[in-house]
Amino acid sequence: MCDGSESQNQAEQNVYNLIQTNGTWSRRSPQQSQQGEGRLSAAKIYESRSDQGSCWTVVSPVTFTYRVLQCRDLLDEANDALLWGHVGDPEELRALKGRPGPVKRFVVMDEAVHALYGARVARYFEARGVAFRILPLPTTEENKSLELVTRILEEVHAFGIDRRAEPILAIGGGVCLDVAGLAASLYRRRTPYVRVPTTLLAYVDASVGAKTGVNFAGGKNKLGSYVPPAATLLDRGFLRSLPRRHLANGTAEMLKMALMKHRGLFELLEAEGPTMLSSSFQSPDRVGAEEPADAATESTRVAIETMLEELAPNLWEDDLDRLVDFGHLISPELEMTVLPALLHGEAVTIDMSFMLSVARERGLLTAQQQQRVLGCMRGLGLPVHHAACSLGLVRRALAGRLRHSAGSLRMPLPTGLGRAEIFHDISDETVCEAYSKWNQELSAPEDS
Amino acid sequence: MCDGSESQNQAEQNVYNLIQTNGTWSRRSPQQSQQGEGRLSAAKIYESRSDQGSCWTVVSPVTFTYRVLQCRDLLDEANDALLWGHVGDPEELRALKGRPGPVKRFVVMDEAVHALYGARVARYFEARGVAFRILPLPTTEENKSLELVTRILEEVHAFGIDRRAEPILAIGGGVCLDVAGLAASLYRRRTPYVRVPTTLLAYVDASVGAKTGVNFAGGKNKLGSYVPPAATLLDRGFLRSLPRRHLANGTAEMLKMALMKHRGLFELLEAEGPTMLSSSFQSPDRVGAEEPADAATESTRVAIETMLEELAPNLWEDDLDRLVDFGHLISPELEMTVLPALLHGEAVTIDMSFMLSVARERGLLTAQQQQRVLGCMRGLGLPVHHAACSLGLVRRALAGRLRHSAGSLRMPLPTGLGRAEIFHDISDETVCEAYSKWNQELSAPEDS
Repeated sequence: MCDGSESQNQAEQNVYNLIQTNGTWSRRSPQQSQQGEGRLSAAKIYESRSDQGSCWTVVSPVTFTYRVLQCRDLLDEANDALLWGHVGDPEELRALKGRPGPVKRFVVMDEAVHALYGARVARYFEARGVAFRILPLPTTEENKSLELVTRILEEVHAFGIDRRAEPILAIGGGVCLDVAGLAASLYRRRTPYVRVPTTLLAYVDASVGAKTGVNFAGGKNKLGSYVPPAATLLDRGFLRSLPRRHLANGTAEMLKMALMKHRGLFELLEAEGPTMLSSSFQSPDRVGAEEPADAATESTRVAIETMLEELAPNLWEDDLDRLVDFGHLISPELEMTVLPALLHGEAVTIDMSFMLSVARERGLLTAQQQQRVLGCMRGLGLPVHHAACSLGLVRRALAGRLRHSAGSLRMPLPTGLGRAEIFHDISDETVCEAYSKWNQELSAPEDS
Repeated sequence: MCDGSESQNQAEQNVYNLIQTNGTWSRRSPQQSQQGEGRLSAAKIYESRSDQGSCWTVVSPVTFTYRVLQCRDLLDEANDALLWGHVGDPEELRALKGRPGPVKRFVVMDEAVHALYGARVARYFEARGVAFRILPLPTTEENKSLELVTRILEEVHAFGIDRRAEPILAIGGGVCLDVAGLAASLYRRRTPYVRVPTTLLAYVDASVGAKTGVNFAGGKNKLGSYVPPAATLLDRGFLRSLPRRHLANGTAEMLKMALMKHRGLFELLEAEGPTMLSSSFQSPDRVGAEEPADAATESTRVAIETMLEELAPNLWEDDLDRLVDFGHLISPELEMTVLPALLHGEAVTIDMSFMLSVARERGLLTAQQQQRVLGCMRGLGLPVHHAACSLGLVRRALAGRLRHSAGSLRMPLPTGLGRAEIFHDISDETVCEAYSKWNQELSAPEDS
């Protein structure tokens, strides 16, 4: 039925499975489908008829598969990963290696990363006999636009790649991975891409999920898609060249996962955070495989695992209740307002710091727990307050969220250290009261 | 393992299910998951560890649901469909109708369609108390570009819509629906949209599937996404204002489905095609509900059903063997080469006409069957040959397909009237021989 009225449910609805025989799909009633011939799809078609005509409802599951691989020495010519790490199936790998002609790879690199690693990437592909093109781009938050996507698409098109066999590589921070990912997801409606994060933030955050995006009309990530990479290749070696502030920036997203669901990770960040920052999240040389994992290895692994747990069941964000939104209710507005003063993770930390006050106001956290988390943030060198984070900005950001979250704030709040829930009933009064206390307690000059 | 070598399969791999309790997702081994607490996701995470670190493989099914509804009098103020036809669930509908403030709708319309129906659409929304904005655009094949998408996005953003509750409406032909669909799929990473086709081609083809797209760098639909509309609203009333050539254009895609998998549809097009064209695919007034369906009702219904059968199990085109590609191996190249001389369905028919010769050359069709199909095409007023469809163009187009179809032409060919198979071994010799005969037989002036 198509008049949208309730009568639609009274109409008789037939459900059909889909069976493929000799290359042709046919509808079959569930009874007919049990005869076991042909290939059964997970998709279904529901059909009803009325005097207006037919009404079909198509229910079609699409399975996304992607790999997240930790590697060492990714740019070492002996390491296959950069070229083939996205291929999980040995048979497919053999077929790909057996294709005639040279292998081609198009590489998008942040230009600062290119200055540091461009020559080594080129050497890797030369040594491997790969026909490649590296496109260095200024992938900053200010440049994160559809124009950059178009630029990549033009170059990819001119270079020419096989949409099935030759993934686009993106090497850089989150902006670079997001922009290249969007270009790949658009090119021929979907070209595989491989993410190589070179910042800690991208390592633990952008790399793990399916989101791509660019800013638009002053709004953060207002355009994008949910198309995961074929693979993400994680090499902490890249972090050696990161300034401390950018390392700290990455710990913000780790802390987010810690506060939401993993007390052990919180304790690790609290106790070992400053040391990990000082060693650029590198592992000490291990004597034997039996040795317990070091803090950098352990904390990044847990951050990624907890993130994957939350993302995998909700890849397209159909479920609006998302713990991973913690720290992301106010921070997009704040980050875009003061751009480029705050890095993403810094804005996220200020958001989380404010949310601690909301949780406290609501009676979910003790004063001691709140102070302990704030202490951890400070220990990581992260800001816990910012003058631009006014009550007006907070309320504007929350109103925007309300508008786009089907009528509820859906506010993830910690209910202790390492556990959280999503609250639908946080009142404007609670927010204002929490803001007032937060601002009073934390707006001292040394924190702003 | 991350070195992409075969050793990866020897590493021990753990598989985890994902269970949600109190809003938090956790990994569980299959044994643990059977304890029945919490909500089980269909997603899985596979994990293996090596001396390089961990390797996770995420397998995440995302379910797409969309409605295809046949309606009458869609612009009649009494008909709920234009406003609410995309909502299948009565409870959701109640919640949406109960939201505070006026309902908002952003409408993208082809400008020629706007000239004919713009006032009626405006009247519909005014009568319904909807805050709306209609954006008329020149949605021609020549304009089908990323610029048009950006234009829509800017206007949508300025107008302001709720990404969950207020779908973007697209009213027009295939280009309009494709461009608006791409804009919607990008806006906030996915905003629902509703397709209202006003051409027969869009009615039976673009409306039914998940594809959006624009042309890029001279290539047809080189950019796009696979995001289905929330709903497609099918009202054959719009076809009354279509010129005969544009109606014939639409029958090409119906004929495609007929040739691939439905002999009954072929016979209907063969016998009743000219009459249906003359009546603009309108149905005669029915005396009673017991009367058998008329040819226009029946043929469009079967065209859509057969198309849905092929698309639903393969929404993201992961399977490269697609019967619906028939007529689309050479036609994109041909269509873009002679733009705007041939309409899409005309180029598709020329492609199909050539493929009949390939099928004949391969011994899949008798001369009589071939002539019968050509006769049907001519009866529908469709071209069966074009001077620009040179052997060079044919071979270039097929080489392009080969490059992007994982090393096989995957050529759908009729193996009779209303059945088909996909062939992987059609040689260049067969193609050349078929071309020579096709060109000789059909390049007579009256057909070109």
